[in-house]
Amino acid sequence: MNTLGIVQRNIVRAAPDAVERLGKLGVATIHEAMGRVGLMKPCMRPVYAGARLCGTAVTVLAQPGDNWMLHVAAEQIREGDVVVVACTTDNEDGMFGDLLATSFRARGAKGLVIDAGARDVETLAEMQFPVFSRAISARGTVKATLGSVNVPVVCAGALVHPGDVVVADGDGVVVVPAAFAQQTADAAEAREANETAKRERLAAGELGLDMYKMRDALAKAGLRYVD
Amino acid sequence: MNTLGIVQRNIVRAAPDAVERLGKLGVATIHEAMGRVGLMKPCMRPVYAGARLCGTAVTVLAQPGDNWMLHVAAEQIREGDVVVVACTTDNEDGMFGDLLATSFRARGAKGLVIDAGARDVETLAEMQFPVFSRAISARGTVKATLGSVNVPVVCAGALVHPGDVVVADGDGVVVVPAAFAQQTADAAEAREANETAKRERLAAGELGLDMYKMRDALAKAGLRYVD
Amino acid sequence: MNTLGIVQRNIVRAAPDAVERLGKLGVATIHEAMGRVGLMKPCMRPVYAGARLCGTAVTVLAQPGDNWMLHVAAEQIREGDVVVVACTTDNEDGMFGDLLATSFRARGAKGLVIDAGARDVETLAEMQFPVFSRAISARGTVKATLGSVNVPVVCAGALVHPGDVVVADGDGVVVVPAAFAQQTADAAEAREANETAKRERLAAGELGLDMYKMRDALAKAGLRYVD
Amino acid sequence: MNTLGIVQRNIVRAAPDAVERLGKLGVATIHEAMGRVGLMKPCMRPVYAGARLCGTAVTVLAQPGDNWMLHVAAEQIREGDVVVVACTTDNEDGMFGDLLATSFRARGAKGLVIDAGARDVETLAEMQFPVFSRAISARGTVKATLGSVNVPVVCAGALVHPGDVVVADGDGVVVVPAAFAQQTADAAEAREANETAKRERLAAGELGLDMYKMRDALAKAGLRYVD
Amino acid sequence: MNTLGIVQRNIVRAAPDAVERLGKLGVATIHEAMGRVGLMKPCMRPVYAGARLCGTAVTVLAQPGDNWMLHVAAEQIREGDVVVVACTTDNEDGMFGDLLATSFRARGAKGLVIDAGARDVETLAEMQFPVFSRAISARGTVKATLGSVNVPVVCAGALVHPGDVVVADGDGVVVVPAAFAQQTADAAEAREANETAKRERLAAGELGLDMYKMRDALAKAGLRYVD
Amino acid sequence: MNTLGIVQRNIVRAAPDAVERLGKLGVATIHEAMGRVGLMKPCMRPVYAGARLCGTAVTVLAQPGDNWMLHVAAEQIREGDVVVVACTTDNEDGMFGDLLATSFRARGAKGLVIDAGARDVETLAEMQFPVFSRAISARGTVKATLGSVNVPVVCAGALVHPGDVVVADGDGVVVVPAAFAQQTADAAEAREANETAKRERLAAGELGLDMYKMRDALAKAGLRYVD
Repeated sequence: MNTLGIVQRNIVRAAPDAVERLGKLGVATIHEAMGRVGLMKPCMRPVYAGARLCGTAVTVLAQPGDNWMLHVAAEQIREGDVVVVACTTDNEDGMFGDLLATSFRARGAKGLVIDAGARDVETLAEMQFPVFSRAISARGTVKATLGSVNVPVVCAGALVHPGDVVVADGDGVVVVPAAFAQQTADAAEAREANETAKRERLAAGELGLDMYKMRDALAKAGLRYVD
Repeated sequence: MNTLGIVQRNIVRAAPDAVERLGKLGVATIHEAMGRVGLMKPCMRPVYAGARLCGTAVTVLAQPGDNWMLHVAAEQIREGDVVVVACTTDNEDGMFGDLLATSFRARGAKGLVIDAGARDVETLAEMQFPVFSRAISARGTVKATLGSVNVPVVCAGALVHPGDVVVADGDGVVVVPAAFAQQTADAAEAREANETAKRERLAAGELGLDMYKMRDALAKAGLRYVD
Repeated sequence: MNTLGIVQRNIVRAAPDAVERLGKLGVATIHEAMGRVGLMKPCMRPVYAGARLCGTAVTVLAQPGDNWMLHVAAEQIREGDVVVVACTTDNEDGMFGDLLATSFRARGAKGLVIDAGARDVETLAEMQFPVFSRAISARGTVKATLGSVNVPVVCAGALVHPGDVVVADGDGVVVVPAAFAQQTADAAEAREANETAKRERLAAGELGLDMYKMRDALAKAGLRYVD
Repeated sequence: MNTLGIVQRNIVRAAPDAVERLGKLGVATIHEAMGRVGLMKPCMRPVYAGARLCGTAVTVLAQPGDNWMLHVAAEQIREGDVVVVACTTDNEDGMFGDLLATSFRARGAKGLVIDAGARDVETLAEMQFPVFSRAISARGTVKATLGSVNVPVVCAGALVHPGDVVVADGDGVVVVPAAFAQQTADAAEAREANETAKRERLAAGELGLDMYKMRDALAKAGLRYVD
Repeated sequence: MNTLGIVQRNIVRAAPDAVERLGKLGVATIHEAMGRVGLMKPCMRPVYAGARLCGTAVTVLAQPGDNWMLHVAAEQIREGDVVVVACTTDNEDGMFGDLLATSFRARGAKGLVIDAGARDVETLAEMQFPVFSRAISARGTVKATLGSVNVPVVCAGALVHPGDVVVADGDGVVVVPAAFAQQTADAAEAREANETAKRERLAAGELGLDMYKMRDALAKAGLRYVD
Repeated sequence: MNTLGIVQRNIVRAAPDAVERLGKLGVATIHEAMGRVGLMKPCMRPVYAGARLCGTAVTVLAQPGDNWMLHVAAEQIREGDVVVVACTTDNEDGMFGDLLATSFRARGAKGLVIDAGARDVETLAEMQFPVFSRAISARGTVKATLGSVNVPVVCAGALVHPGDVVVADGDGVVVVPAAFAQQTADAAEAREANETAKRERLAAGELGLDMYKMRDALAKAGLRYVD
């Protein structure tokens, strides 16, 4: 029952080609393609402008003010992973900085998503190591209490299993279950293709009211135009 | 009594020359010229650095998680308008993205102010379509419940009537009632002219204590200097 | 007992060479060197990207919506000072803008730290006058009620005495008591030197688990590896 | 244009019988009867359990940390009024306590709604003087800067005109425009009568799905039952 | 992949005797017995003093401002259930009131846990129908958009599966996975028994330092006593 | 320089008679008598209705999610003390519950003020052991990292030295420096005596405008009465 104090070494990662395809799509598009689920809360922001990431999740459950498990997680990183850190309670301490970023990158990590704080953000920007966090904080942490690595976690309101695809851009962070990565990529690509045509029609001045055929439904709902 | 389900087609917009003059002034200056009223709450921030806008308000009252009325509003936009979206309850969903921005721009809109979330912010920055919002969120919305267009709304704590002038820059968002646009522009320009002279004196090392003749009032209030 | 209505003219500033040395170090490093104390809360953010400051504190205790004491503080600024503004109650009004920045710079100030709002942020960025604040707000303030200058203040959760060293960068704001400036600079420089070697080892793929010799402690704490 | 520094002496209050009828209804019912508008934000809470009020609004626009205008407002109170205090900026100071409550009650006030803080809450409970506020705070205020009395204000997100009916109970605070007080009372009473019958059917085990005939609409929307 | 628009009719509920035993224990004790996991965030509070509940979860995933799925959920309630409502995005609207409480109770529900708002709280207190929510709000909701019933949900940061045991008291809300209900009850009862003895020793003046034998560990960690 | 890892055994407590006198006064009155300083932020609330406390501070600086130092503090409690817990970073975990309350009471403590969470609140209410906290949370804590006891701390925005008088009631928490306890008691008692007379005059219908002689100052500030 106790999910603390565990490191799961073998995890099933989403298929690499699906991950690659999802990495070319936007978070909003992927989230729509999934039926509008899987988003983390909007408090999760990039620590530098333009940060983007896509990869398979190595999950961490950390204790407040304690980044011990991030060091444990480093060993579990494979090329193409994104480390996703949840915390047992709300905490904004700077659990992650440039040293861990150096280590994670050396292990193949594509970035970090952390429901806590990050620091050394100027160096992270120079390194172009993408980090999405709830806060930026210089506050240092201890290494005293066990959490877990590669257990299912709730991170910023989203459920993340090890191996899931995590995509983040300026709009936020979305989690795609590993088993649905291919079909989500299919649906998201179809959606994106569809948007290009719509964009052109709207740019030409056509109204969404007409393009989406909304006028009947609006009238039926009782919309009244007054002068 | 019910203000939901209405689209007001004819609105009285502020005089174009007053709008143009206000657009050259800063939000802080305009707000001071109005007697320190008319500001939205400081949670309203630009979605990209350097965003600025000025125009006449087309107002929208939206429901949480529902952007149907933004499509209805598009038809009411005239050249030089700014769409101002209030919500019936606190909500941070991404009600507005690049497709609506394309449509709004094609209709002549100068930008958007929304007391909710926006998304596609990287594309909005590329388009240089200025948006000021309470949040950035990839969360998509439905089109299911009526709100209204061009009714008076309370947006981020400020009362906005259709046709009012809305000005936004890095300091926030201010609303100038249409009927007071000219005199506010007069007062704000006078204030700005006055500031240049003050800036030079302060840059030369003169103290505000002396320039504003504060020493007597401070002494009278009981200020004590101790060594 | 009453700490309001006082201006302390003579304050003991930290030694200039210690201030200079601390200005070359990062906030996270300094805070760690002090034993993980002295940080302001992470709500304190730079008003423009890349802002950094280091100097000796001239402290201000202001009233909500009132910036009178900032004008009083200007006269107390010496070359190399940073003005630190606390407020008697939570307030986000724009107490500080480009005119005060012009005045403070003319008096020798290196920047401002304010547990309230700042405005004219685009001009502050052009001036490259670094400001760290809890909020950005165009809201203007009155000059009606006394606070104090150069009394001990609690600013964003940190105790600041006049003359203390204040350092701020993208990671936050740290306060170093004047009496400990030299030894903090020593400890922080040592720490930084140490980090370079660590960074190289981590970049080469060595794990923190091994470099910091964590495996025994983790096992003792009960960490279990499962497949 | 400047709405500060004004006391409007003559205001049009809602009809007394409508006020009396609304005072017997719940806030949720009234808000539904108005078409789901007019509510203040849910941060507005009673300072003691069981507080309820209903009356016609005397409005106050106050400055942060300053309760001068509440004293000015006292003179404008008539029997049956509720004082509604908005603030020019977010502020939680204790602008109102037992002395003002004593004065307001002596003038005929039925209670207070304040988008700021209140204090002396134990005494207010003993007095059974109902107060709804954003915060409870012992912080005292000054009397230094003008606001206004009996101008339209935005209080906790709701627009309030002098003379409007304000009703508050454990569910929150609702504002009924004076001109719509009668018809709102009609609609709310009808709604309440209707609820009694519904409650009995639901208590007997009938499902809302059947009572409200929702099954067809749910099926049409695509709801799937799985085993 | 899409988890919206589904009602799962058959769910596996935790064993009744385990539920009964857990209902006699406190939330803090249960959470400790589980290894300090399973708690919802502390924003979840009872809507009246003294509310407590324990039962098996019927889960609901609702849309913001929309309580349609709560009506769908009513039909799935069995004697001893607790309805747990998560929302696709942060929302504080009053999705639940006395009519739904009447219906849920008639179906056998023991209470409600909702990561949104509740209303009619005075009536809920009279009914003694326990509700734990993020907010109290009179704001009404629509019935327009599908969510789901009896899918796994994240509610206030905790993962809840249909059939899990949910226990709530004045300290918060805890979720016990159905499969671990018995062993959690065992561990929690043992813990509680153990606490009685400790309480007596502490009440007699014995120090926790001695009772828990902490002095050595504190000394080893470097604690210094100074006079 | 490092303030962590220290227990100061000898502290100078405020004079018992001053503490006793302050305990009979309200927090708002004491804070006014001190010149409107010394209050903690209004997020600090009693965990049960009617809680009140007054005593001399034993201070604790705790780490997030860690209550080890509270056990250390127990040994330092003398009859009449109040334990004041600050945390090195924002944290709402339940660091304090009924076992510690039992121990603290056995040592003579009058109550607890904690800038974090408390739990077992129903038992605390039964025990009538007054606790003021930022949050109520069942979340348990570890005992792993050193903080300090009886060092100066910043608790909820207020500076507290060991031995200071701490008074809390339904309006909040105020800190009176030990050296000023007598004169604060004098000033507060005088203020309270003065309020009784004012209350009677206001209850008789006299306006504060007249009683405080505000009309001239208001007119001078520019207040306009309009009809």
